[in-house]
Amino acid sequence: MPVDPQLQQIDLAVIAVAATAEFWATSSATVRSALLEGLAQALEAHQIELVALADEETRLGAGRLSGEVARTAFQLRGFATEVRNGVPYASVDDPAIAGAPPAGRPRLIRVNEPLGPVAMFSASNFPFAFSVLGGDTASALAAGCPVVVKSHSGHPRLSQAVFDIAQGVLKAQGLPAGLLGLVSGASRAAGTYLVQHPHIAAVAFTGSFGGGTALWRAANERPVPVPFFGELGSINPLIALPDILARDGQALASILAGSITMGCGQFCTSPGVIVLLPGEASDRFVDHLATALQPLATHAMLTPAMRQGFDHGVAQLEQAAQARPLFQAAADTRGPAPRLFEVDAQAFIDNAHLREEVFGPCAVVVRAASVAQVNQVLSAIDGTLTATLWGFEQADESARSIYRSARKVAGRVLFGGVPTGVAVTAAQQHGGPWPASTQPQTTSVGYAALQRFLRPVALQDAPAWTLENPGTCA
Amino acid sequence: MPVDPQLQQIDLAVIAVAATAEFWATSSATVRSALLEGLAQALEAHQIELVALADEETRLGAGRLSGEVARTAFQLRGFATEVRNGVPYASVDDPAIAGAPPAGRPRLIRVNEPLGPVAMFSASNFPFAFSVLGGDTASALAAGCPVVVKSHSGHPRLSQAVFDIAQGVLKAQGLPAGLLGLVSGASRAAGTYLVQHPHIAAVAFTGSFGGGTALWRAANERPVPVPFFGELGSINPLIALPDILARDGQALASILAGSITMGCGQFCTSPGVIVLLPGEASDRFVDHLATALQPLATHAMLTPAMRQGFDHGVAQLEQAAQARPLFQAAADTRGPAPRLFEVDAQAFIDNAHLREEVFGPCAVVVRAASVAQVNQVLSAIDGTLTATLWGFEQADESARSIYRSARKVAGRVLFGGVPTGVAVTAAQQHGGPWPASTQPQTTSVGYAALQRFLRPVALQDAPAWTLENPGTCA
Repeated sequence: MPVDPQLQQIDLAVIAVAATAEFWATSSATVRSALLEGLAQALEAHQIELVALADEETRLGAGRLSGEVARTAFQLRGFATEVRNGVPYASVDDPAIAGAPPAGRPRLIRVNEPLGPVAMFSASNFPFAFSVLGGDTASALAAGCPVVVKSHSGHPRLSQAVFDIAQGVLKAQGLPAGLLGLVSGASRAAGTYLVQHPHIAAVAFTGSFGGGTALWRAANERPVPVPFFGELGSINPLIALPDILARDGQALASILAGSITMGCGQFCTSPGVIVLLPGEASDRFVDHLATALQPLATHAMLTPAMRQGFDHGVAQLEQAAQARPLFQAAADTRGPAPRLFEVDAQAFIDNAHLREEVFGPCAVVVRAASVAQVNQVLSAIDGTLTATLWGFEQADESARSIYRSARKVAGRVLFGGVPTGVAVTAAQQHGGPWPASTQPQTTSVGYAALQRFLRPVALQDAPAWTLENPGTCA
Repeated sequence: MPVDPQLQQIDLAVIAVAATAEFWATSSATVRSALLEGLAQALEAHQIELVALADEETRLGAGRLSGEVARTAFQLRGFATEVRNGVPYASVDDPAIAGAPPAGRPRLIRVNEPLGPVAMFSASNFPFAFSVLGGDTASALAAGCPVVVKSHSGHPRLSQAVFDIAQGVLKAQGLPAGLLGLVSGASRAAGTYLVQHPHIAAVAFTGSFGGGTALWRAANERPVPVPFFGELGSINPLIALPDILARDGQALASILAGSITMGCGQFCTSPGVIVLLPGEASDRFVDHLATALQPLATHAMLTPAMRQGFDHGVAQLEQAAQARPLFQAAADTRGPAPRLFEVDAQAFIDNAHLREEVFGPCAVVVRAASVAQVNQVLSAIDGTLTATLWGFEQADESARSIYRSARKVAGRVLFGGVPTGVAVTAAQQHGGPWPASTQPQTTSVGYAALQRFLRPVALQDAPAWTLENPGTCA
């Protein structure tokens, strides 16, 4: 056992969680879905006190936080339904075929095995939906994996309160306390220790590029590397064609200004890059956007470190010769005043700093000279959670080529609306090429998220007893 | 462009392949499946000359090599069928629901986007099935990704001949030559250059642990890391319970000796560890196995480096105080004489060297004192492609616990027969926890292999024209 008391705490939590892994891997759909539903119900039952506590710690406001509790409970129930529908227990059965290979074959049945204990790193910006009982925990439990939650230092008391409520549900349902563990401590050493603990079989992370890549490296440096599902950062380009801006520019500018400042810009899907073609409609749209954005007041950022990060990103844009501020920033309210910059597409393509995510209420307008240059702008973005396309109703050559470019860099392509707001459905994809995700073939929102925590196993010529649904033996 | 001519060759090949990525990503099921079927037919049409060439280079024998051509053609046709059945074009469609979130939502359709150009590293031991037109190439092409093949230095002329045949098929079908590229050169620098080429979007590798982890690290050290699907090594434990050995030990020993020496032990699924419980039946089985194995002649190993690796592994076992040779090795034939060692379970658990894969005709008998110790032996194995369970027809507590232990470390669990021989089916899983696979949730054999090269994209409120099956626009 380590000497450092913080690492000791992690060690004890992981060992307690690991002791439940086999029980949970072989638990029935009834038991598993009842837990997920019990957790949803308990969250709702304690909503008023939890929202008050969350608002004290995050200042996100009761309205937004109540909505987030509803979303978190909805998500837990959605995964319960997936479990009851048998998703984690699904199998593919290939009957034996007599004769020599390659056509002849034994009977093979492909089943799923839960990976084992998951280390889950909470995000700052969703104190419910990406925290103790958020999507990662819900999907891991649904898949049959117990979870050690690393709470976020931005809301430690809320994390403890939600954890205590979850423990109450486990106790009431006669389930082992170790199905869910909680560790705290913001140090890099503590995070590394957790990720490298021999009992940890997978990691789920939502947070900054710097913190995320450090932990991803730690997972890869283990004697036995484990899957690391990290969602690290995204600049979420929005491409608006001139025709739609000519028709509806003012209203769209107002909607976009709202999305840029929503939650003080602290969403992984916040639109950070607005790509426009030449023309009067685009020019007027930029004016409308500047007018709409400049006066908006924001709430305080979640942590001082995030505020520092925002100020640093803005300063970098202010010092870049190629970036022009589109208005003088208003005075800060409780949060930072919104910022809007403009750059030429070639500068954006040439200068990687101009493509860096500024987490907070800031966006960069990229002025492209042609459709070809729009495509070059999209190709210069390594990976992004979303790309939003406005004015793509008609299938002309320009629309087709930009659509293809968007699909190549994004996990979700929107044809209207704004990227903030991520529906929890089977078809959702919240992930994308690096650095949006460390595993771009997986999603951290939506029901496919539970597949992250399962591994296929082929059973060859298996006797009947091994084919009992593992969900029915517990 | 690099100065080194070998790297120049790689650069040119990757650029030519990358130029076809968009065409192939949007190609129709008809075009894609016709290519796969054309490649299968061309392989068969040239079978006699290709087998002769392969036998010159690998000495694997015409029988085995002809079977491998049949398997490779079968596999290409199997992927063609998957394509025709629409697997790479499959989507999940969630209709819009009116109202506020979380229940209300936009329409979301989850589709697949091919990752892009794949770098594929051929294996030494399957000159057809894991080489130029092997499973990785077939599954990548089926998914919509063009492929740069790195040929194996063990069969360069065969690789070139198969590549030339493939180019003939591309030409006959009016497809771009760049859908398939070929590069050679065994140096680590060349491999790293290929993996780190900015146009490469994913890597498929079958080979040694050392070479594989070096390239996996190179992929992770890219400015933009890409998915690396590596199959690196496996010791394939076989657990035989006393009852079945008492009934049928002699016949089973003979079958197992055949599997250990098959292909001179150069299969990733070669059974390297035989775990036995105490008792007379186990003792007699060890005698039978030693008797069956000792006189078997093997063919020459594929490369001098592999022979050196085998000799090194055997020497390490001979020098280990805890390992006892079960017979004096016979004189080498064209290949090395088979080896069989015995160790106590506790030594196997304590000494990682005893758990290392010895690639070639060598196995280690592990003597466990109890079922609990069998489970400890399995837990000490980090990950393995297969685990074989003999005598598990009855569902008693011992069988259940060993079965669970096997599922936790293996990608395929067999209840009879031997692990060599991997059927190409939808339910197959050829992968496993590290080090069996760098991505244990994927398979490199069977039709699920094509999923490695696809990435989900959610289309939100997409107009009808974007939902045309990409397979139908080309």
